[in-house]
Amino acid sequence: MADILASLRSLMASQSPPLDALLVPSEDYHQSEYVSARDKRREFVCGFTGSAGLALITKNEARLWTDGRYFLQATQQLSGQWKLMRIGEDPPVDVWMSDNLQKEAAIGIDPWCVSVDTAQRWERAFAKKNQKLVQTSTNLVDEIWKNRPPAEINPAVDHPLEFAGRSVAEKLKALREKLSCEKARGIIITTLDEVAWLYNIRGSDVSYSPVVHAFAIVTLNSAFLYVDKRKVSSKVSSSLQANGIEVRQYGAVSSDAAMLASNQLDQATGVNSGQNGVCQNDTCDNDLIWVDPASCCYALFSKLDANKVLLQQSPLALAKALKNPVELDGLKNAHIRDGAAVVQYLVWLDKQMQEIYGASGYFLEGEVTSKKIQETMKLTEVSVSDKLEGFRASKEHFRGLSFPTISSVGPNAAIIHYSPQAKTCAELDPNSIYLFDSGAQYLDGTTDITRTVHFGKPSAHEKACYTSVLKGHIALGNARFPNGTNGYSLDILARIPLWRYGLDYRHGTGHGIGSYLNVHEGPHQISFRPQARNVPLQASMTVTDEPGYYEDGNFGIRLENVLVIKEADTEFNFGDKGYLSFEHITWAPYQIKLIDLSILTPEEIQWLNRYHSKCREILASYLDKNEMEWLKKATEPFKSVAAPAFLWRKSSRNQATSAPLCFSGTAYKGGVRAEIVRRN
Amino acid sequence: MADILASLRSLMASQSPPLDALLVPSEDYHQSEYVSARDKRREFVCGFTGSAGLALITKNEARLWTDGRYFLQATQQLSGQWKLMRIGEDPPVDVWMSDNLQKEAAIGIDPWCVSVDTAQRWERAFAKKNQKLVQTSTNLVDEIWKNRPPAEINPAVDHPLEFAGRSVAEKLKALREKLSCEKARGIIITTLDEVAWLYNIRGSDVSYSPVVHAFAIVTLNSAFLYVDKRKVSSKVSSSLQANGIEVRQYGAVSSDAAMLASNQLDQATGVNSGQNGVCQNDTCDNDLIWVDPASCCYALFSKLDANKVLLQQSPLALAKALKNPVELDGLKNAHIRDGAAVVQYLVWLDKQMQEIYGASGYFLEGEVTSKKIQETMKLTEVSVSDKLEGFRASKEHFRGLSFPTISSVGPNAAIIHYSPQAKTCAELDPNSIYLFDSGAQYLDGTTDITRTVHFGKPSAHEKACYTSVLKGHIALGNARFPNGTNGYSLDILARIPLWRYGLDYRHGTGHGIGSYLNVHEGPHQISFRPQARNVPLQASMTVTDEPGYYEDGNFGIRLENVLVIKEADTEFNFGDKGYLSFEHITWAPYQIKLIDLSILTPEEIQWLNRYHSKCREILASYLDKNEMEWLKKATEPFKSVAAPAFLWRKSSRNQATSAPLCFSGTAYKGGVRAEIVRRN
Repeated sequence: MADILASLRSLMASQSPPLDALLVPSEDYHQSEYVSARDKRREFVCGFTGSAGLALITKNEARLWTDGRYFLQATQQLSGQWKLMRIGEDPPVDVWMSDNLQKEAAIGIDPWCVSVDTAQRWERAFAKKNQKLVQTSTNLVDEIWKNRPPAEINPAVDHPLEFAGRSVAEKLKALREKLSCEKARGIIITTLDEVAWLYNIRGSDVSYSPVVHAFAIVTLNSAFLYVDKRKVSSKVSSSLQANGIEVRQYGAVSSDAAMLASNQLDQATGVNSGQNGVCQNDTCDNDLIWVDPASCCYALFSKLDANKVLLQQSPLALAKALKNPVELDGLKNAHIRDGAAVVQYLVWLDKQMQEIYGASGYFLEGEVTSKKIQETMKLTEVSVSDKLEGFRASKEHFRGLSFPTISSVGPNAAIIHYSPQAKTCAELDPNSIYLFDSGAQYLDGTTDITRTVHFGKPSAHEKACYTSVLKGHIALGNARFPNGTNGYSLDILARIPLWRYGLDYRHGTGHGIGSYLNVHEGPHQISFRPQARNVPLQASMTVTDEPGYYEDGNFGIRLENVLVIKEADTEFNFGDKGYLSFEHITWAPYQIKLIDLSILTPEEIQWLNRYHSKCREILASYLDKNEMEWLKKATEPFKSVAAPAFLWRKSSRNQATSAPLCFSGTAYKGGVRAEIVRRN
Repeated sequence: MADILASLRSLMASQSPPLDALLVPSEDYHQSEYVSARDKRREFVCGFTGSAGLALITKNEARLWTDGRYFLQATQQLSGQWKLMRIGEDPPVDVWMSDNLQKEAAIGIDPWCVSVDTAQRWERAFAKKNQKLVQTSTNLVDEIWKNRPPAEINPAVDHPLEFAGRSVAEKLKALREKLSCEKARGIIITTLDEVAWLYNIRGSDVSYSPVVHAFAIVTLNSAFLYVDKRKVSSKVSSSLQANGIEVRQYGAVSSDAAMLASNQLDQATGVNSGQNGVCQNDTCDNDLIWVDPASCCYALFSKLDANKVLLQQSPLALAKALKNPVELDGLKNAHIRDGAAVVQYLVWLDKQMQEIYGASGYFLEGEVTSKKIQETMKLTEVSVSDKLEGFRASKEHFRGLSFPTISSVGPNAAIIHYSPQAKTCAELDPNSIYLFDSGAQYLDGTTDITRTVHFGKPSAHEKACYTSVLKGHIALGNARFPNGTNGYSLDILARIPLWRYGLDYRHGTGHGIGSYLNVHEGPHQISFRPQARNVPLQASMTVTDEPGYYEDGNFGIRLENVLVIKEADTEFNFGDKGYLSFEHITWAPYQIKLIDLSILTPEEIQWLNRYHSKCREILASYLDKNEMEWLKKATEPFKSVAAPAFLWRKSSRNQATSAPLCFSGTAYKGGVRAEIVRRN
């Protein structure tokens, strides 16, 4: 590791101008969250394996910025040469650089690995002390990385209409309409999932995300895919061609972006103007190039005329987030099969914990019967997660995991994005909480679920924490809210039951999920982060509901379901805005043993009973007799609980509907609009 | 009214350059919410009496922008010459002007009546079409206003330390430290409550706010008060002088701002450098003038060198919001006397409604016994609110109302900021909901309370709405939240119970309240408005909790208490941030008859019982025997309700405290910080 820093520093000094500092982001050329092995440059330089983080190397120092999910993990993985900078507690990287690097410092970055937004924010911070961001012509990390994994050549495949639900032609048409509306004549698409979604293709260049390393450019008249041509079969090539998409080499995107800027791209390809597009003649005044500043790399942006760039969120982000009916059906089906795999896993694990470790098991709270455990029988975080993968792999349409399974025992569960390694991971422990957060890629949808369980005797404190997390999980899932509400506003619902006792968690509460695409998908989110304010939640979006609580050194708890946003059938419709609610599409039981029933409201208990009863109903056809018996026991309704009361029961609701909307009162004049639009 | 518009248009045409449009804001020179009669220019031109609104007069049109609280009222008050523009639904005024006024249009404004923020936002909007904002040298409305009320000469009085809690010397010292920190050498203070708070003076120039029409300038070495000198007695003058404050004529602020800009103000006054201040010599590099862009008028800002201005929220806004212990005691005491007045009013009104109108009364749900009512006996919204004022006036330290009492029957209650007029107001009605939102100025504190009652037989729908509002009111008041949480995040807590049924309200949920100062005080608020994100809530702030529900043409419901923010004694302290909670300081019963008990959780019921029991205890010494009997009945506890359960009861809490914080698990390494700081 010392060698790496020394080599980098020597290379930095040899640059022109010599670099005083070098930034090494986690991201690849596409600002991906999960990157291929050869793109893990930040991990290579500092050893930290988490998905998010930014390394800064100066002549004398090395610092890593990462967020609350990873504080523990980074502390463990960074060597003494590195200093951890905690996002939210320590100064942000731009502030730190501006304050601590000398005047006129040259700070290097590979412009392919940084977004326009980030590069420009840094440049603004640097202006104060005349520091400058230097775009290196090569990636310095690649130059010193001796055993860098080679590029894999994995085939791109068609994603058929039976799963995609919408044809490429329809998607291109809608995109071009958006371009026209915004006076743009072209768009550069750089995120891998947007390219895959738009062209209905999938691949396997990156672990966990079924995408192809590729860029796209779409103009009003033409469309391009930039990809290693060896990945494109003649079958795929011809279906792309049928949609007017020309396949070009991956590296050609750079020169083509420049051609696009000078309005020569369409001519160069010999596309007949007006053939596919909206624009029929040369007099059209669409002259902007649309670039998403949050994802487009600074290298491509630099090829454009800054005055003719529309820096705005890609229209594909929202289009992709609003799932079509075929995608919604697929997602629901995928989550049913996935839920069955999770239940099968729990049944298996319950048996193992009892047989091998003498645990009282999933249902009983008892002491462990001490057993002499054979070394070969031992279960580890990795071995059990392999078993879980096996249950998923047996299901229809399975294509792999959607992210590295978090399989964590006791204190490891407090590491929010813990990723167990075969050699070092912990053994299962009947006296500890076990948290697993996992998901898969199925042809018809992507899944993501977290459950927390205990196979022995949980403490009252663990139960209280579990119940508080559960209350937050239910409160968010049961919310109804008017159109226009964003995920920043809703975030607090999942935290209030924890805050009551002075507890909290250091991560957002929900993210969108792809349709056989990325497991983390925007543009919306449920979070305390300011970005969560930018996008109102809308019907047909997906979002996770995953509050948690983590006690360093002791245990962690998280509960996660995927929700679909839908129109709510509310009794009234004040302001005529329309109201939304959530539909759970994840199916797996909550462990009743961990719930302190006394603190649940009748409404919460009713919700749990209903959810559990649906689990039984929905998963029945995927489980064998033994598994089904286990599930019946796991989902037994809570009894002798008063039924929750509801306002506007049938009788009073009718009364409300027939209430006269006439005006009275001497100071009142007519001519106003009715605020209440009643439902029929 | 037609004459007014015609006269204004003729005056607009005679300006140089001739004005294509004229903006008439509601605000006075100090951006006050409540203004004196002679400053009600916007009301004079358009007839709309609400507290917020902006009038725009063009050659052919007249439009008024106002917010959701006033849509109904504006519809009623505006003549046919005026078009109502609904904020949040119609285009904002800057967008509308930019889109609809011609290129290079000249749009006039009195620069004393508009804030820097607003003027600059307009100017940015105007840039697109080369329109320009023209600062008129006189106020055109004043010129045509024939019977404009004269300026009143009301005395300024000392606000003694026993109520202020903090001396002027201390406040000036803290202010000058703030100036130094921000490299400022002076500040212009323009809001009336900030001037009054800083100099511990009060007055009666404006209805409802005990302030003096005045500006202040404070530098590191000197301090000035700009006020009509006739208002300042020799006693007040000498106590000001004792604190190094020089009294100057109101109009001198304009030239003094220019002197301040050229650094000649201190010299001109002959103040010894370093006498009072922090800065001891000329080499100090504090060279900025601090101006609050949200409140400082454009006229004064224009006197300064824009490059040497620190445009930032006034440091007095937060200092004033963080109440000192004397102010908190005073506020609590004032609210107890105020609560007693409200109960006395309810007792009186209950009796009248039964005797005069044959109502079943506050406690019973019965049909009205038809009675022949004598004309002279009739109760109106205004006559009863006069009675309420009487009860308040009988209390110690009473100095007047803190805002126009909203006393509203039936459909009038749906007009959020309804202000009944003696000639046109409605009669009390035993078959309708009655809402009153009122408050007073006491020497030791300002109050604000809303209750909604029914003296006959409320419908199931009305009860359901009341209960939903009450649930939101309780949910917000019971919240605990970490330091750093803002009022934008908390706002949703009061709405969720309404949203559940598709109901909502078109106003914020809470505002700060002054200490014998403005009833609406910032800088914090609880609201869906973006500004609510800017200021985290802090211990010792006051804030109201006032959700509502309004059904046009039928009824309105609002419940409002004042809360004090305090440190919460939570079981844990995750993240070591410290947690906050609210303390109710308003004391008056909720009407049990209007509550649908079946929908309340055990926790909500317990809270109501405790609150009601405290009402009895706290108000006892202010009520006579009859009133006390009424209150006892009004606050009878709900019986036979299961006690709410709490996590971490004594036993489990101890267990949590003693839980080992040791680390185990093979993949776990040490060296991390404990996330949980347990309370002792």
